[in-house]
Amino acid sequence: MKLKQLVGERFKERPADCVIDSHALSIRGGYMKYVGSGIYSLYPPMKRITRKIEAVIREEMDAIGGQEVLFPVALPGALWEESGRYESVGEELLRFTDRNNSRMVLGMTHEEAAVHLVREYGQTYTKYPFTIYQIQTKFRDEARPRAGLIRVREFTMKDAYSFHTSKEDLEKQYEIFYRAYHRIFARAGVPEVIAVQSDSGMMGGSVSHEFMLLADAGEDSIVLCDACGYRANMEAAANSVDNTGGLLAAPLEKVYTPHCKTIEEVVEYLGVPVEYSCKAVMYQKNSDDSYVIVFLRGDYEVSETKLTNFLGEKVHPAVITPESGLVAGFTGPYQMKEGHTVLYDVSLKGIEYLTCGANEENYHYKGLQLLRDCQVTDFVDISKIRTGGICPCCGRKTMQVKRGIEVGNIFQLGTKYTEAMHMTYTDADGESKYPVMGCYGIGVGRLAASVCEARHDENGPIWPITIAPWQVHLCCMRVDQAACKEAADELYAALLAAGVEVIYDDRDVRAGIMFADADLLGVPLRVIVGPKALKDNQVEVVSRDKRISTRVDLPRAVEQIQEMLRGLFEEIAAQVEPRRQ
Amino acid sequence: MKLKQLVGERFKERPADCVIDSHALSIRGGYMKYVGSGIYSLYPPMKRITRKIEAVIREEMDAIGGQEVLFPVALPGALWEESGRYESVGEELLRFTDRNNSRMVLGMTHEEAAVHLVREYGQTYTKYPFTIYQIQTKFRDEARPRAGLIRVREFTMKDAYSFHTSKEDLEKQYEIFYRAYHRIFARAGVPEVIAVQSDSGMMGGSVSHEFMLLADAGEDSIVLCDACGYRANMEAAANSVDNTGGLLAAPLEKVYTPHCKTIEEVVEYLGVPVEYSCKAVMYQKNSDDSYVIVFLRGDYEVSETKLTNFLGEKVHPAVITPESGLVAGFTGPYQMKEGHTVLYDVSLKGIEYLTCGANEENYHYKGLQLLRDCQVTDFVDISKIRTGGICPCCGRKTMQVKRGIEVGNIFQLGTKYTEAMHMTYTDADGESKYPVMGCYGIGVGRLAASVCEARHDENGPIWPITIAPWQVHLCCMRVDQAACKEAADELYAALLAAGVEVIYDDRDVRAGIMFADADLLGVPLRVIVGPKALKDNQVEVVSRDKRISTRVDLPRAVEQIQEMLRGLFEEIAAQVEPRRQ
Repeated sequence: MKLKQLVGERFKERPADCVIDSHALSIRGGYMKYVGSGIYSLYPPMKRITRKIEAVIREEMDAIGGQEVLFPVALPGALWEESGRYESVGEELLRFTDRNNSRMVLGMTHEEAAVHLVREYGQTYTKYPFTIYQIQTKFRDEARPRAGLIRVREFTMKDAYSFHTSKEDLEKQYEIFYRAYHRIFARAGVPEVIAVQSDSGMMGGSVSHEFMLLADAGEDSIVLCDACGYRANMEAAANSVDNTGGLLAAPLEKVYTPHCKTIEEVVEYLGVPVEYSCKAVMYQKNSDDSYVIVFLRGDYEVSETKLTNFLGEKVHPAVITPESGLVAGFTGPYQMKEGHTVLYDVSLKGIEYLTCGANEENYHYKGLQLLRDCQVTDFVDISKIRTGGICPCCGRKTMQVKRGIEVGNIFQLGTKYTEAMHMTYTDADGESKYPVMGCYGIGVGRLAASVCEARHDENGPIWPITIAPWQVHLCCMRVDQAACKEAADELYAALLAAGVEVIYDDRDVRAGIMFADADLLGVPLRVIVGPKALKDNQVEVVSRDKRISTRVDLPRAVEQIQEMLRGLFEEIAAQVEPRRQ
Repeated sequence: MKLKQLVGERFKERPADCVIDSHALSIRGGYMKYVGSGIYSLYPPMKRITRKIEAVIREEMDAIGGQEVLFPVALPGALWEESGRYESVGEELLRFTDRNNSRMVLGMTHEEAAVHLVREYGQTYTKYPFTIYQIQTKFRDEARPRAGLIRVREFTMKDAYSFHTSKEDLEKQYEIFYRAYHRIFARAGVPEVIAVQSDSGMMGGSVSHEFMLLADAGEDSIVLCDACGYRANMEAAANSVDNTGGLLAAPLEKVYTPHCKTIEEVVEYLGVPVEYSCKAVMYQKNSDDSYVIVFLRGDYEVSETKLTNFLGEKVHPAVITPESGLVAGFTGPYQMKEGHTVLYDVSLKGIEYLTCGANEENYHYKGLQLLRDCQVTDFVDISKIRTGGICPCCGRKTMQVKRGIEVGNIFQLGTKYTEAMHMTYTDADGESKYPVMGCYGIGVGRLAASVCEARHDENGPIWPITIAPWQVHLCCMRVDQAACKEAADELYAALLAAGVEVIYDDRDVRAGIMFADADLLGVPLRVIVGPKALKDNQVEVVSRDKRISTRVDLPRAVEQIQEMLRGLFEEIAAQVEPRRQ
């Protein structure tokens, strides 16, 4: 199509409210428009990209036996009551009532709908295993939508659900999905996406993986071990801390620490290493507002996910009241008021003499021994692993922490939903059993944004050929010169006839504007028809990533451009693991 | 794929709650499952059908310069407030609030979102005309969902919006859409879909057409003139009635009509033809509950759409109170209590002596002359045309009334939305103007259901090859016989390798079950591998519509099946008007 007919605007200025590059470029490049908090309309270029991503996903899902279905966006609340999630999921589940005052929800994930769809079909073991998937709009009422398509409220997602008669069979299909997901991300041009172990959260189940694209702009923290290859989401990685070595023997002593409210202030004031300090982080349970005091080493942080999992319920940061007997900034494990839930993190294990709060305004203790003074023997893992920490897999101090964007996830759900929703099948022996489920998600728009985040320069995205909105961006540099216009028009027609996807810029604008727009559209190959090369009966071909910059003879231009496109496709294909039979 | 792996159930019994065939077959054939009132999940066969329909629509939209975009399903209420429809649209617009208590709606149509998307892009006349479209989930909170996918609450729709700088330019694009729609319906296998003039209703604008598939199960009434070709939705067709001829002269006389509450009872009791009777239909305005009395000929019916359009506001059936002074069952125009809105329908025009209510329990008048006794000179068209009525176009008494399903609609919206939402452009003279809009819809699921309604027999749908879930239904009649199984397996592999879409039934079941399932899946060509034909090294090929029933030699089977498929595609293509340049 012609660029001058393309609906959407491109501009130079970075919008003030965009914190990450892909978001800024999506707005600047005319890819999408803000409609409301976390809600966007997509312009044609982004719609073309997401359609191509969806086609890749569909092919890979079909190749592993997935059957495409469609679940509703608006679901009866009763369905979510069956699974218990109508109550258990927080405000991110958008609940409303229809004109008849029936309770409804907007689907944010479709385990309930999947079980509902196949509950009768799957009544006998001979039907198993089977996998269904959909590509559909979802809504998640995020408290803080941000970063453009990375964290939105409304989004398009591929979600798949597999059903099995055994855990082993689920594991087999899980492995197949695992490989299909790597193929999908590689085909979308980001073969560097890694799978990491993750926490299953509200989905339930035990084993789960997230597929992460490493990016500084990412919202998730991932831990990686270069030594053994261990990879996990920060929240899922077991922390352990080596506190052996140098004793700092000291008698138990209350010391005056005026105005030292943070652990950093305390250790600086007292001149002790932070490795020998114990800080308190205080929460209250959402259920009854009772206090939960977490003690951990001064330089570690609480993982609220781990804490929630350990407690089996949600918490919020504590509001300290006089009745609590807690002294904010000076809470310590020694002679603390009783009655609260107190947890000691693994990061404290092995420290012999600690500095900690004295439960009294402006006072701390030095030389505290947890075992001797507080009879602590039980340490739980509720802290976040740190760079240089101990790898939970190989035990070496090789952990690295990186940021990443979660572009997909896979869960071994087990029987959580089939049990809750009474889906059973009769096995070969006539026994009634619950099917075992897996679920598998990929956010389409988020993947598009992530590719942009991973493949861009300051001027715009550098789309991989497989998902680029067009394959060739044709520029006619002088529409006012008949020969130039004619050559470009002819090349446009010839490329279209050859089945090449072309966006054709035949506007009468300066080269700077033309190229800025081309950069923003990020089309892999740019073909420039200009007077200079035309004198030699040639056109210029440059690639958006600057690796190609050449001239081709006009009579063979279509052929040579097709050759280069094939090369780009092959480069991507070379990064994709073959399907196993 | 193999039928035994196909998710979904097929069964013989017609579900009790299905009033129309396509609904019953959709449930019986494993095409969809009820989730909640007017909300369905789609099983793989229906998803395959709708994907094909969407592909046809997309091709035709792209061919006329449509650019695909994506609007949100959940929209900020503020956007609908801009157009005024947040207030004006009834309960079918589902309104809710999000976690921050912001007002939101579920999109049932996207004029507001379309204007929002291009409001900045379209600021200068050089950008015009342009057309955008999406294929997206919509929600309409219908009071009475029914008939399966024909009238649902959640549905997938293609909606397109065109923007123009003149009415003439809009009319040009409207005409192009008109032709593209005929192509779409013909390509989907229902070339008999007709375009009828329609009422624009809540959309606004003047000219509009509905695309109707004639079907007894349809919800809409369409009037057609065989003489001149005039076609319109009942609600849009002007009614006129010829009351000349036979006088029934009589003096004005009050007569006793005990217990005659309906006009049918009255005319039978008094022995007068119904053509000389006047009945009253009573409403109240939604705004202030004031009464609206419609008088019309006893054998005509009020068109509430016409009435609403005439009044410019909505009404509901009247609740008659003693204070109203109205006498239910005996209301007439003569000496009626004053103060109500009174309308005389065109069906009364020209009747010289009327029988009507006397505004007194158990009494009617005979011999009423509207002009003489009630000074009525103004007759308005608020009644429905009837079979045998006068064609508004050629004036002959040739009207036919038929039932139809609306599968698409096109509207010339004018500037209703651009004015309300302050979308302007600067024209060549530097003047600021409102763009002129058109909008164009097709319900994807409803089209699928309509095709089924138009193409089925008692055993199942007869899908046109262009949208059929598969092209070939391969049956292996004796899986227990190695030769038969082997031949079928080989043919299956060969057909797949040739790119044919095959559903393969290699279950060990009776022929009756196999064929019943094949009938329910409605695949155009059935290929039967059985021992009898195999003796001659042949397989049977029959078409679902029974027009083909033949044997082909096994070695040439793939080739001949492909030939037959081509024939089926060509038959459909022959019904499609070529695109004009």
